[in-house]
Amino acid sequence: MADQDARNGEDKRPTGIPALRWEEPPEGPVLVLLDQTRLPAEEVELVCTDPAALVEAIRSLAVRGAPLLGIAGGYGVALAAVRGFEVEEAAAALAGARPTAVNLAVGVRRAQAAHREALAGTGDTRQAARAALAAARALHREDTEASARMAAHGLALLDELLPAGGHRVLTHCNTGSLVSGGEGTAFAVALAAHRSGRLRRLWVDETRPLLQGARLTAYEAARNDMAYTLLTDNAAGSLFAAGEVDAVLIGADRIAADGSVANKVGSYPLAVLARYHHVPFVVVAPVTTVDPDTPDGASIEVEQRPGYEVTEVTAPQVPVAGAGGGIPVAPLGTQAYNPAFDVTPPELVTAIVTEEGVVSPVTTEALASLCARSRQVTIS
Amino acid sequence: MADQDARNGEDKRPTGIPALRWEEPPEGPVLVLLDQTRLPAEEVELVCTDPAALVEAIRSLAVRGAPLLGIAGGYGVALAAVRGFEVEEAAAALAGARPTAVNLAVGVRRAQAAHREALAGTGDTRQAARAALAAARALHREDTEASARMAAHGLALLDELLPAGGHRVLTHCNTGSLVSGGEGTAFAVALAAHRSGRLRRLWVDETRPLLQGARLTAYEAARNDMAYTLLTDNAAGSLFAAGEVDAVLIGADRIAADGSVANKVGSYPLAVLARYHHVPFVVVAPVTTVDPDTPDGASIEVEQRPGYEVTEVTAPQVPVAGAGGGIPVAPLGTQAYNPAFDVTPPELVTAIVTEEGVVSPVTTEALASLCARSRQVTIS
Repeated sequence: MADQDARNGEDKRPTGIPALRWEEPPEGPVLVLLDQTRLPAEEVELVCTDPAALVEAIRSLAVRGAPLLGIAGGYGVALAAVRGFEVEEAAAALAGARPTAVNLAVGVRRAQAAHREALAGTGDTRQAARAALAAARALHREDTEASARMAAHGLALLDELLPAGGHRVLTHCNTGSLVSGGEGTAFAVALAAHRSGRLRRLWVDETRPLLQGARLTAYEAARNDMAYTLLTDNAAGSLFAAGEVDAVLIGADRIAADGSVANKVGSYPLAVLARYHHVPFVVVAPVTTVDPDTPDGASIEVEQRPGYEVTEVTAPQVPVAGAGGGIPVAPLGTQAYNPAFDVTPPELVTAIVTEEGVVSPVTTEALASLCARSRQVTIS
Repeated sequence: MADQDARNGEDKRPTGIPALRWEEPPEGPVLVLLDQTRLPAEEVELVCTDPAALVEAIRSLAVRGAPLLGIAGGYGVALAAVRGFEVEEAAAALAGARPTAVNLAVGVRRAQAAHREALAGTGDTRQAARAALAAARALHREDTEASARMAAHGLALLDELLPAGGHRVLTHCNTGSLVSGGEGTAFAVALAAHRSGRLRRLWVDETRPLLQGARLTAYEAARNDMAYTLLTDNAAGSLFAAGEVDAVLIGADRIAADGSVANKVGSYPLAVLARYHHVPFVVVAPVTTVDPDTPDGASIEVEQRPGYEVTEVTAPQVPVAGAGGGIPVAPLGTQAYNPAFDVTPPELVTAIVTEEGVVSPVTTEALASLCARSRQVTIS
């Protein structure tokens, strides 16, 4: 039943290949990922038969996006349990594969807790493995549902903020069906606006260095017949100055208790531009992205990625040459500063949209009360 | 003598190959350009034997940068005259090859005026051609000298703004010896700070879409042994937030009479970030970049470049595939917004540094008085 629900979510995807699925071939269960590093040139699936392969897929960004990482983490624990790997060890490796996205650790911990509980109760490893898998599937299904609720809340907020309609929305990185069990976070809101005839233009930041906007968001926008235009992250300033942006919609990888938002590098400059031009800056993320254990922005660990992502150019057909498998564009030996994320303080965030409702203005108290409501819903 | 002075400027370049030189081989004079689209992988020279080849080199950015475009424009008129092409026609094509950089048209007009005057006075086309060449060489020499004076004025300003020393300077695009008869504009200031031991770090924006920062500024910084770090344009926000930027130094392609600055796209977002973080935003450009005929920012024509610069990835060794000769990274048919420049209003500019001195605060009156001073110097 859980599986079926998840499948229904998958069927809505613009591509026939879901971002992630659990398969049970005769030779044992596997986690199948759509390799996002190959998009949009090729739709290639990556089959993980052990947790180590999934850790590598997470590190290389073959699977990425905060909500999807949570689901992948849950299935990763299930995979370890079902295939007889050391579950606690696998859970630790998975949770630590990327440090900033809190959802990854949350998903891992949930399947791990289900596994531990069943093991303590029954002593039966097969039953414990089934419990871990059920937890991962529940997370998958909940994310699909959360995505639809975020889209509805987000669209209502957009309509309230922009009563004139004809929304021109700027987005950064990729936050659609490739990051989610459903249609995503920020992208799902833009898609809802598109379906209701109220999206005039989706401005897509290319999102250097890995071009998730050009490669993935443009791919999802094209498949949904949305009116979209790609731009270098640099060019967003000109659009703001020309009055061509009505709202910024982005996702989040971690939201601190005070409402500081860690998201793909380049989000913070957009928040500053939005404030300077009096444009709403809206963050869309499931409640699991809020981390009550991280008090503020300064406490968020920001992942530093290898410099070759900046110093080399890569594309599917580029012959391998440099350290990162690409063509060097900077002089050899060039040092690069390459944080994967940046942190936007709550005072620059107009609203945080979650599946449980909208927080605006963004305060510690309002966020805490939303999270408490979410826990009640989960418990009840 | 004029030629000799220009050569002296060239000898200071970090690479043995100057960005541009006039040669007189037995088969007739040519303008030789260092093909900047091939850097830093290869140092290849491009030989222009006619004005059409130069127009193409300007359009493809083989030769680029506001001051250098002025010099190239002047030599282009001389080349047309010396080689017997229709001078007025060639001048129009050269001046219109790129619309935003005012220096290009200024350089063309200067050689054209010298040619017209000599022709009207003597009726001798050979003498007129010599006059055009002398005008181009004078422009070349003056730019070399202007560069040194901008560096001195800019360094004095930096020391005044940042008395603590240990300057950490962020720059965008390329403004060094590759754009100038001398050591450039903004880069020349950073280089002067480096030589005087007062530059702690040069932060180099990669500058999408054509990566002039990664390809050219990093190349010049490396050859001058400067402490530099490359970053995606996106990551500048994180540096500002972390207090790691003491000043922004950029060049300009056109400065309107009111002090609005057109420069490489991505400059305006830096100006907004700099203001938000109370960091000085300094523009370095020769007086010829100030265009009294352009009253304000809204009057500046911003060049829109082909979308394939954004939708395709190119590097010297990348096999040709897409419309722009690169590998497509976005879905086929993706539309891109690709302005080459953006416009920063004077209220966001801390100072404009020219060879004639510094304007701060930036006002129409202060700029006009500086330009008047410059004209007196030129006439006297």
